Amino acid sequence: MIKQIFIHAFCLTLLFVYTFAYPSKTFSDERKAISPPPDLSEQTQVCIICHKNYTPGIVEDWLRSRHSKTTPERALKKPALERRISSEIIPESLQTVAVGCYECHSQNPSAHKDNFEHFGFKINVIVSPNDCKICHSAEADQYSVSKKAYALDNLQKNPQYHSLVEAIVSTKEIQDDKIIHLNASDSAKAESCYACHGTRVTVLGMKKISSGMGDIYVPDLTNWPNQGVGRINPDESRGSCTSCHPRHSFSIEIARKPYTCSQCHIEPDVPAFNIYHESKHGNIFSSNQHEWNWNNVPWRVGKDFQAPTCATCHNSLIATPDSKVIVPRTHDFGARLWVRIFGLIYSHPQPKDGRTYSIKNKEGQSLPTSLTGELASEYLIDENEQMRRQTEMKKVCQGCHSTDWANKHFDRLNDTIVETDKMVSSATQLLLKAWKEGLADASNPFDEEIEHLWIRQWLFYANSVRYASAMEGPDYAAFKNGWWELTTTLNKIRDLIQTKRK
Amino acid sequence: MIKQIFIHAFCLTLLFVYTFAYPSKTFSDERKAISPPPDLSEQTQVCIICHKNYTPGIVEDWLRSRHSKTTPERALKKPALERRISSEIIPESLQTVAVGCYECHSQNPSAHKDNFEHFGFKINVIVSPNDCKICHSAEADQYSVSKKAYALDNLQKNPQYHSLVEAIVSTKEIQDDKIIHLNASDSAKAESCYACHGTRVTVLGMKKISSGMGDIYVPDLTNWPNQGVGRINPDESRGSCTSCHPRHSFSIEIARKPYTCSQCHIEPDVPAFNIYHESKHGNIFSSNQHEWNWNNVPWRVGKDFQAPTCATCHNSLIATPDSKVIVPRTHDFGARLWVRIFGLIYSHPQPKDGRTYSIKNKEGQSLPTSLTGELASEYLIDENEQMRRQTEMKKVCQGCHSTDWANKHFDRLNDTIVETDKMVSSATQLLLKAWKEGLADASNPFDEEIEHLWIRQWLFYANSVRYASAMEGPDYAAFKNGWWELTTTLNKIRDLIQTKRK
Amino acid sequence: MIKQIFIHAFCLTLLFVYTFAYPSKTFSDERKAISPPPDLSEQTQVCIICHKNYTPGIVEDWLRSRHSKTTPERALKKPALERRISSEIIPESLQTVAVGCYECHSQNPSAHKDNFEHFGFKINVIVSPNDCKICHSAEADQYSVSKKAYALDNLQKNPQYHSLVEAIVSTKEIQDDKIIHLNASDSAKAESCYACHGTRVTVLGMKKISSGMGDIYVPDLTNWPNQGVGRINPDESRGSCTSCHPRHSFSIEIARKPYTCSQCHIEPDVPAFNIYHESKHGNIFSSNQHEWNWNNVPWRVGKDFQAPTCATCHNSLIATPDSKVIVPRTHDFGARLWVRIFGLIYSHPQPKDGRTYSIKNKEGQSLPTSLTGELASEYLIDENEQMRRQTEMKKVCQGCHSTDWANKHFDRLNDTIVETDKMVSSATQLLLKAWKEGLADASNPFDEEIEHLWIRQWLFYANSVRYASAMEGPDYAAFKNGWWELTTTLNKIRDLIQTKRK
Repeated sequence: MIKQIFIHAFCLTLLFVYTFAYPSKTFSDERKAISPPPDLSEQTQVCIICHKNYTPGIVEDWLRSRHSKTTPERALKKPALERRISSEIIPESLQTVAVGCYECHSQNPSAHKDNFEHFGFKINVIVSPNDCKICHSAEADQYSVSKKAYALDNLQKNPQYHSLVEAIVSTKEIQDDKIIHLNASDSAKAESCYACHGTRVTVLGMKKISSGMGDIYVPDLTNWPNQGVGRINPDESRGSCTSCHPRHSFSIEIARKPYTCSQCHIEPDVPAFNIYHESKHGNIFSSNQHEWNWNNVPWRVGKDFQAPTCATCHNSLIATPDSKVIVPRTHDFGARLWVRIFGLIYSHPQPKDGRTYSIKNKEGQSLPTSLTGELASEYLIDENEQMRRQTEMKKVCQGCHSTDWANKHFDRLNDTIVETDKMVSSATQLLLKAWKEGLADASNPFDEEIEHLWIRQWLFYANSVRYASAMEGPDYAAFKNGWWELTTTLNKIRDLIQTKRK
Repeated sequence: MIKQIFIHAFCLTLLFVYTFAYPSKTFSDERKAISPPPDLSEQTQVCIICHKNYTPGIVEDWLRSRHSKTTPERALKKPALERRISSEIIPESLQTVAVGCYECHSQNPSAHKDNFEHFGFKINVIVSPNDCKICHSAEADQYSVSKKAYALDNLQKNPQYHSLVEAIVSTKEIQDDKIIHLNASDSAKAESCYACHGTRVTVLGMKKISSGMGDIYVPDLTNWPNQGVGRINPDESRGSCTSCHPRHSFSIEIARKPYTCSQCHIEPDVPAFNIYHESKHGNIFSSNQHEWNWNNVPWRVGKDFQAPTCATCHNSLIATPDSKVIVPRTHDFGARLWVRIFGLIYSHPQPKDGRTYSIKNKEGQSLPTSLTGELASEYLIDENEQMRRQTEMKKVCQGCHSTDWANKHFDRLNDTIVETDKMVSSATQLLLKAWKEGLADASNPFDEEIEHLWIRQWLFYANSVRYASAMEGPDYAAFKNGWWELTTTLNKIRDLIQTKRK
Repeated sequence: MIKQIFIHAFCLTLLFVYTFAYPSKTFSDERKAISPPPDLSEQTQVCIICHKNYTPGIVEDWLRSRHSKTTPERALKKPALERRISSEIIPESLQTVAVGCYECHSQNPSAHKDNFEHFGFKINVIVSPNDCKICHSAEADQYSVSKKAYALDNLQKNPQYHSLVEAIVSTKEIQDDKIIHLNASDSAKAESCYACHGTRVTVLGMKKISSGMGDIYVPDLTNWPNQGVGRINPDESRGSCTSCHPRHSFSIEIARKPYTCSQCHIEPDVPAFNIYHESKHGNIFSSNQHEWNWNNVPWRVGKDFQAPTCATCHNSLIATPDSKVIVPRTHDFGARLWVRIFGLIYSHPQPKDGRTYSIKNKEGQSLPTSLTGELASEYLIDENEQMRRQTEMKKVCQGCHSTDWANKHFDRLNDTIVETDKMVSSATQLLLKAWKEGLADASNPFDEEIEHLWIRQWLFYANSVRYASAMEGPDYAAFKNGWWELTTTLNKIRDLIQTKRK
């Protein structure tokens, strides 16, 4: 109790000092261009007093953000198309102050198992999508049903993918000439698969740590830090907005640039960034991005940007130069996709539901197709929905390309989907024969050399060719993880079977 | 006939509306800095009225271009060294208007099988090098005899390379444990090899498509879209200026940046961009490019740029800071090259003629050397011409490096050419022995594992070491596709032969 | 003698011409913003007269540099924290002129075997760290004891690493079905390993070359050009400041950007740049670098930069936004490192001394651990020093991250070090067994397929996972040279042993 009083006194003193000495600097420096700079809540002012000394990078990052330079009230006055917040109604207490430390880190405390008292304030360690939802409701809702939101569940709850994860990231020991797989550790998973897919962050209790302020008590979190897209937060929400809007600048510019997506969508399994980078779109981006308007909402084709980035095609609100909507914003990143070119093991229509672990193929596996290619159709969108989404995507293409051009581009993609699936089928036929003949053991489909070659075939090479087709990056269709590897690896699988037979 | 009248009436109406309502915006916005902004032809004004709505990205891209901001007449008044057009005489009808839609898309209609009537105008779908030649005659002429112009023919008409293409990009089926190669599809070739090398675009007739303007008729093109460097156009010309000057901005900045070349010159087979990126030149480019003058003509060493890009060494007009010419511009991209370090299968003096499919080695194959390394000398430039070109290239180096430095750099390259060719020779000796002993089948030299290893040796690894030598990117000489792979792959070839003998 | 007089007369004429005609241009153009522009020494003025014509790129590069725009005298007047020179006392003759050609290229002539007379001046070809030390003494001293300074010795004088170099970069011939290793050539080594590690540059005498000025005499240097970090210079000093501060602009901006480090620290063996590029830090750098202050000293977290680059964590002077020092500058790039995650063959505490060739493990090999993992502890820093350095590094992290976050990040790294070392141990156990059973020949541990697989395991894959852990680049922990390759390669080693047994 005495400690509590002490802390409150301490904070009040800081607040007093701050009120008379500090604001001039903060306001005059980063935020002086804003007239008038928005007020900060009293709580946020106190946060900044300490954190300006203990984590100054965060404070400066926030000072660059739009959150520090406006208020929800001002944001709501913008024309609808220019708004970056989608909620129509925002609690009065938040309306007239900048969106500061306390405004974000204090929401929904009862849901947050990571809520704790920190120098007199009850705050959450983690700001979750459910907290951001107060102002960004449409985005949070769209995201919450997407495959991204379930990215962790979709690995963990799917027996096939779970086995693959364990087979790869487990430490192996040698015992009597045999390779023994130990259990994959939390660290190994957190740094590899789950860095992108997300971890489940739980609260074990409180713990004492030695910080710059002396010993303090903080929640003891498991699987932390993590910013994966499917993170399960201590309030049970899914996702991490900072995956793409890092970290306290919440910059739309960063999210629109392909470097953000490249954190996870990178070769060899998902070579989206690599292919974009070598495509003509990527060339124009790399060469001319310095002249573009990265912050405009809506994002106007030709005017604000000359060539698409990942965000342009997959989720941004895109408009004509005179601000007529071409496609609306979405934070379900699969919403404009009709086919999933990321083969598991074959390409397939997009799943109806973000929870792909619930899919069952005819053999009862959690896969969108059987090993011989039959679709688990009841879990996948139908042709009408596919056509609707393709039409939506084509609208983006047609901002710069003729109808015929766009049609023919997608015709080629269709051909390539058929051909690469056939290449996967050829490899799978060989593997099924090897399993049948006892040349390999099907009980774990991910731990022998022939199985590793087969995995490369669908996960690395067929995917690379399809992504290369979708985004026109020719080397990934040819020599770099493309047809060259599809061809030589198929030979290797056949040769390995022949050798094993002898 | 009634339709014709209707279309003309429609266009006149648009023109009327445009004259009174539209120009103020177009001119005032993107082109207002130009005083006075050049006139647009009446035809181009009509194009823009519709395309501003249907493909606004193209219109905005063009508004950024120099084409929209000047006229040939004004361009001709520039001092010769600063001119971006090389033709001395330009048709009067084109002289006093901006280089707009109609000016480019209406040229040489009788040669263009893709010419068609489009809302009252006879236009070509494709603007070919022969059209650009009206103003850029020297560039079109230089390009027309280069290896790039014949990049498609050089793949298709060369039996060896044609076999390689077919072996790689064909879909494979399994029949009775055998891998059956189907024919490589047009889509697969268009997205891989021909994406860079170019396709042959032919016109099948007219077809109806459903566009934003309703049903319209357009030429039915084969192998379209494509922007490969050796594209054969519907007017029988070769090449696609937009390969390097994308798309309607025709920016010299984009063409001068290495990202343009990286669309095709990328690892594993042609790792020019990757090596440049990790070289000191590439470092300086990546770090400081934002301070350079990317648009100056002539391009002045030290003043406009601090380190060379691909264009600096291979084709730009380079001058001293006080604008004395160091090397003239060329659009034959091999014109400053004395040796072809891209081994086929060995490095060799540059071919005399861009049509490399006409080369015959002593065994009658369309290869610049025999498999044992003898040059097909009559098709290759002689030592005098080699020396002349090396001297030309060294002039660029000597903008920043001493004579001794440049000499020693090229001495090392010479050593490396000898050594890597010897490594290819060692691998080839092993393959020839395997063929002779019946351990592999020479009838198709590109479809067995030992052959795939041999291809890697000359196409990926020896090339990487030579490019790394030429541009000083040490990792591609060492562990990344360099000596490491040359060494380990040679071991694998030997081991495979020993295994097959047993 | 007559020649000497002629040259001096020539130079005086040039100087006369220069004094009246030249300065206005030089000063008015690049340096006009400086008021007043510093004087140039008479010698430097003469250098520029010729080199402006013969190597204009160098002159322009220097004109961009701080060296051309200030003097040591002015630099010494800056507040200590803002100074870019660390020497307190600088010779009077250098104090009041710009740091020009002659000021750098004429120092310590008696130590420089590459000193020669060049148009009347005695100059050195190479400016060595010992010359730069006149003004930058702390940096030169720190560097001189670092592993970088001994990077060449550490390859050449270490029998194990020397064998590895020779095994890889030597040309191989086929004789009677055997692969014969020739000696690795100076060119091959200079372009691969020694391009980063440095060469030994010696002076054979003088030689005549044909330059733009006619025939001139210059020192005949061996193993030149080279800018490797461990270069042994003709004055016996070690290093090359231009490795990271290229070339005559000496830009702090270039040295701070990750592209500089990427010249050598790149996949597959040292994938630092690649992992940084795909990390969140790298994303923020790539997306927002254009808004940062790359030239400020001290470098202020949050204010000047939002996310760290290589330099931030490893060597820059980092301060808070209000310029309180977080960590001091160091040019011993290992000074903040407690563990060497670059496994040789296992990770290990940082060596005490930059001369790692003097380390001996218990088997007497120059390796920091035995093949079975025991540390050569007497050559490695102890736990106290490890803790001290980790605390130093964490200070940088804590500029933006909470104490708990930083702690947990390094906890994971510790786990990963243990697990990847165990994976290396498993591979090594298999290799030792193969050697013991005569399935491979231990006399050269680097020239057989099973040994190549083993090298990949520790040099490429275990390293990639550790670097990915340290910098949070998940794909290099997973599919790209990470756990996937560690797992599949271990299988291959086991399978190869089983095949060889049969």
